[in-house]
Amino acid sequence: MPNPTAAMLVIGDEILSGRTRDANMHFLAQEFTKHGVDLQEVRVVSDDRPAIVSALNALRAAFDVVVTSGGIGPTHDDITADCVAEAFGAHIDVREDARALLAAHYERQGADFNAARQRMARIPDGAVLIDNPVSIAPGFSMENVHVMAGVPSVFQAMVASLLPRITGGAPLLSQSLRIYRGEGEIAEPLGALAQRHPELSFGSYPFQRDGVYGANVVVRGHDGAQVDCAMAELATLFPE
Amino acid sequence: MPNPTAAMLVIGDEILSGRTRDANMHFLAQEFTKHGVDLQEVRVVSDDRPAIVSALNALRAAFDVVVTSGGIGPTHDDITADCVAEAFGAHIDVREDARALLAAHYERQGADFNAARQRMARIPDGAVLIDNPVSIAPGFSMENVHVMAGVPSVFQAMVASLLPRITGGAPLLSQSLRIYRGEGEIAEPLGALAQRHPELSFGSYPFQRDGVYGANVVVRGHDGAQVDCAMAELATLFPE
Repeated sequence: MPNPTAAMLVIGDEILSGRTRDANMHFLAQEFTKHGVDLQEVRVVSDDRPAIVSALNALRAAFDVVVTSGGIGPTHDDITADCVAEAFGAHIDVREDARALLAAHYERQGADFNAARQRMARIPDGAVLIDNPVSIAPGFSMENVHVMAGVPSVFQAMVASLLPRITGGAPLLSQSLRIYRGEGEIAEPLGALAQRHPELSFGSYPFQRDGVYGANVVVRGHDGAQVDCAMAELATLFPE
Repeated sequence: MPNPTAAMLVIGDEILSGRTRDANMHFLAQEFTKHGVDLQEVRVVSDDRPAIVSALNALRAAFDVVVTSGGIGPTHDDITADCVAEAFGAHIDVREDARALLAAHYERQGADFNAARQRMARIPDGAVLIDNPVSIAPGFSMENVHVMAGVPSVFQAMVASLLPRITGGAPLLSQSLRIYRGEGEIAEPLGALAQRHPELSFGSYPFQRDGVYGANVVVRGHDGAQVDCAMAELATLFPE
């Protein structure tokens, strides 16, 4: 059975303005690769309701799993939960189980559980909560869409909460060989090798530093023996 | 006149597998913000022809400017130029001016200008070359789509070559205030401030480190006096 396919939707003006360098995409890519989920597309959109709803509907129709990051805090620019409700045509309001989690948290802190904080308990009808051990305010899963926070420490904790619920396939294995030749010299034999192994993917990533140049050739696949075999051929083609 | 809108398409399996952390998106976001171009969407897709062509067509129809990064080298996984040609229904072949640049480069290096390297001179009919002072192989512009390399040093040099050709608008200015209170306490007065200044955008980005927590509130806009005014109000609302 092929691995489930996935897409990620990163929501936030701060990424698109260059203020913040996104870290969640790279983290999720690594986790999904280990878990046997094929991340096939990422989109980054701003805090704009039509843009978010449209991307959500495109991605949830095209991929088995969709993960979002960002926009679930208490401030006016946090509109992700409402956009998910709109995308699914679902009703959204403060939900008692989420409210109770947050109420207990702020009581322990001796902080006011005010209207803004209660917004973080707005969950679309039919969603399943995603545990947030870092800062309590939960994420949620609505069918195949998993809605998580943008703050990296919270995002990472939510991914850990979510992964056991997603049935992965064979992890994508990879091995690489560093070849000290120009990519243009590697290209032809590498292309022929790739054609002999259509079940694997071969990437070539050039580097150049301090006058030393070459390429890292990466072989990826779900069958370790096939990857080993291609790596052996690669080493024969390009001896040190 | 409003600023031109832009989207970026990052092409590469290595980003989606988590092997490489993308750097070009963050760089382009910062450059476009300074240049007065509003980056509104980024997509990352794998080295897959239908995925690239479909994303190219969606983005070039929806945005004034589209920048791509990745997939223009000499190896078999470099398919971006052919995908751009397909998206535009344009013919593509080795073009003499690009071929001459590369031939001279490899002659200077005493390296073989072989078939793989000649692939880097494949340019769709009607495109304008983008100068690459780092490694010579050019990018190209096809109408509103600007095709650039994925290697960060080359991408950055190509952006510098391209920017003078793109008419920007007013740079997006931003100022921020670090507020040592929970986001939930900031949310209500900040939301009211944002409503009083619909021409500005207000973002709130929580932080938490070593038990110290709060939020960076960022005010963005194209008019410096308006941003100053909102920052003064913000400082009054949240005195140190």
